[in-house]
Amino acid sequence: MKIAIIGSGALGLYYGALLQRGGHEVHFLLRRDYDAIMSRGLTVHSINGDFYLPSVAGHKTSATIGPVELVIVGLKTFANKQLYNLIKPLINEDTGILTLQNGLGNEELLAELFGAGRILGGVAFLCSNRGEPGHVHHLSAGRIIVGEYLKSGNKRLELIASNFNSAGIDCSTTDDLKKARWEKLVWNIPFNGLCALLLQPVDQLLRVPDCRKLVRDLMLEVIAAANTQNLSQDIPEKYADSMLEFTDGMGLYKPSMQIDREEGRELELQAIFRIPLLYGREQGVSMLRVEMLAVLLEQCICTAPS
Amino acid sequence: MKIAIIGSGALGLYYGALLQRGGHEVHFLLRRDYDAIMSRGLTVHSINGDFYLPSVAGHKTSATIGPVELVIVGLKTFANKQLYNLIKPLINEDTGILTLQNGLGNEELLAELFGAGRILGGVAFLCSNRGEPGHVHHLSAGRIIVGEYLKSGNKRLELIASNFNSAGIDCSTTDDLKKARWEKLVWNIPFNGLCALLLQPVDQLLRVPDCRKLVRDLMLEVIAAANTQNLSQDIPEKYADSMLEFTDGMGLYKPSMQIDREEGRELELQAIFRIPLLYGREQGVSMLRVEMLAVLLEQCICTAPS
Repeated sequence: MKIAIIGSGALGLYYGALLQRGGHEVHFLLRRDYDAIMSRGLTVHSINGDFYLPSVAGHKTSATIGPVELVIVGLKTFANKQLYNLIKPLINEDTGILTLQNGLGNEELLAELFGAGRILGGVAFLCSNRGEPGHVHHLSAGRIIVGEYLKSGNKRLELIASNFNSAGIDCSTTDDLKKARWEKLVWNIPFNGLCALLLQPVDQLLRVPDCRKLVRDLMLEVIAAANTQNLSQDIPEKYADSMLEFTDGMGLYKPSMQIDREEGRELELQAIFRIPLLYGREQGVSMLRVEMLAVLLEQCICTAPS
Repeated sequence: MKIAIIGSGALGLYYGALLQRGGHEVHFLLRRDYDAIMSRGLTVHSINGDFYLPSVAGHKTSATIGPVELVIVGLKTFANKQLYNLIKPLINEDTGILTLQNGLGNEELLAELFGAGRILGGVAFLCSNRGEPGHVHHLSAGRIIVGEYLKSGNKRLELIASNFNSAGIDCSTTDDLKKARWEKLVWNIPFNGLCALLLQPVDQLLRVPDCRKLVRDLMLEVIAAANTQNLSQDIPEKYADSMLEFTDGMGLYKPSMQIDREEGRELELQAIFRIPLLYGREQGVSMLRVEMLAVLLEQCICTAPS
């Protein structure tokens, strides 16, 4: 399969490297890591075993990649304004576009830009960080759940899942992508939010009982809002407990939003907070604590011109 | 009046200086500022006019002060464990003790230690900061409301108020000290809490509409809890708006808890957050946002032993 990776951060580099190792023709749109990867290749440090790709098809623009069978989008959502120009040269009639980005609103935007029938979405439960240029660190987990934005009945979804699994990516499919997105938010909202606000990794939150309870209360607010979104099945409250246990296994993991803040980047507040809050409000659900966390995050990155 | 100031911080130094200038015999228990004040006196930089006290009765222990007519307590509440030893040498049968400390629980503690009949409390709406040793800055406001912990019918309260006013301190009395305490919390909880968490002065919070709304929502939670506390009169919701306007006049003021955090001191979380939350809960009122703010503050000062 000819695949383009748009947004070659910790997620894009990791999955792209696995797919290339699995025999696919993978093209990476690179920015920060371009020089390092073109001269020294890409090294993956993984709990499942390190590996090294000496030769990688890196690109500075999408134009030199040309049309592909699958575009995988790993771009930070605050850069979504660039999606049209980045993806346009990559598609022909048959190209599928799979967004693995965080939060809500990404499939909708891509559907508007490129037509709904080709859009797929996935949620990745992956702990990975970029290292020095040319290196990516896979710390734990890695499972992906993929689904179609609109049910098309074509075979693209199964083909992708099959290719991913053959390449060593634990990938399952879902008929209810929206539910998978909200389930991921049950993790993203408390952990991305609190770790970015407090500049503390997940284990530091979880070891203090009051803070662990706050994480769980935030999760329950997200679950309550999710269950007004016409999902195929309700998300049970015990999903919060399973996410807490899952996170206990991550040690001192820093979620992407914490790293974004530490490195002075924008935060993905629109996709992870504002759109979910809006969708909840449209169904009459206020997430009081989630709203407060969103306001605190917006406030903590607003510079002081006093 | 022979007066001892226990806790000579921004508040104790400012009011103590005014009382000394007004002709009272004021003794200051000093720590950080002892050397500077004993050798160079105390300078007050005030919006009402600067003044200088060349000779100040500073002490390193209460023992050298001996019994006084009035003890004014300005100690940080996280140091309340020291109150017994600090105050014991200062009292005889007639001594009154006025705590101007933040939050709830201080009169109760002093009453337990020294007898309820002599305990008075006051809330100060004062913007002041310490400067270099020997200097205190009065930035705005300064009004005090004082009341008795138990209604005694004796004349001490009126005498204190009259002495304060003669010394240039805008001081009124209240029959409902508890109400005054909760009114002060309507300010202290959002501003001390949010400024300390975000490390931003009050004007930076108030100029962002979402954050200003969060401040107001926190105020309304405190007002709702206050109105279950058997006050002589309900606190109306519009009190929140008057506090917002009052604070608009403060400019880039940093509340004491922000300064405490910036300077690595403990935070007054027990008096300003935990006891009010408990009193609310005892009356069946959950302050969701206040609780969340308390947890975030506890978490942000907990060091990372990871």
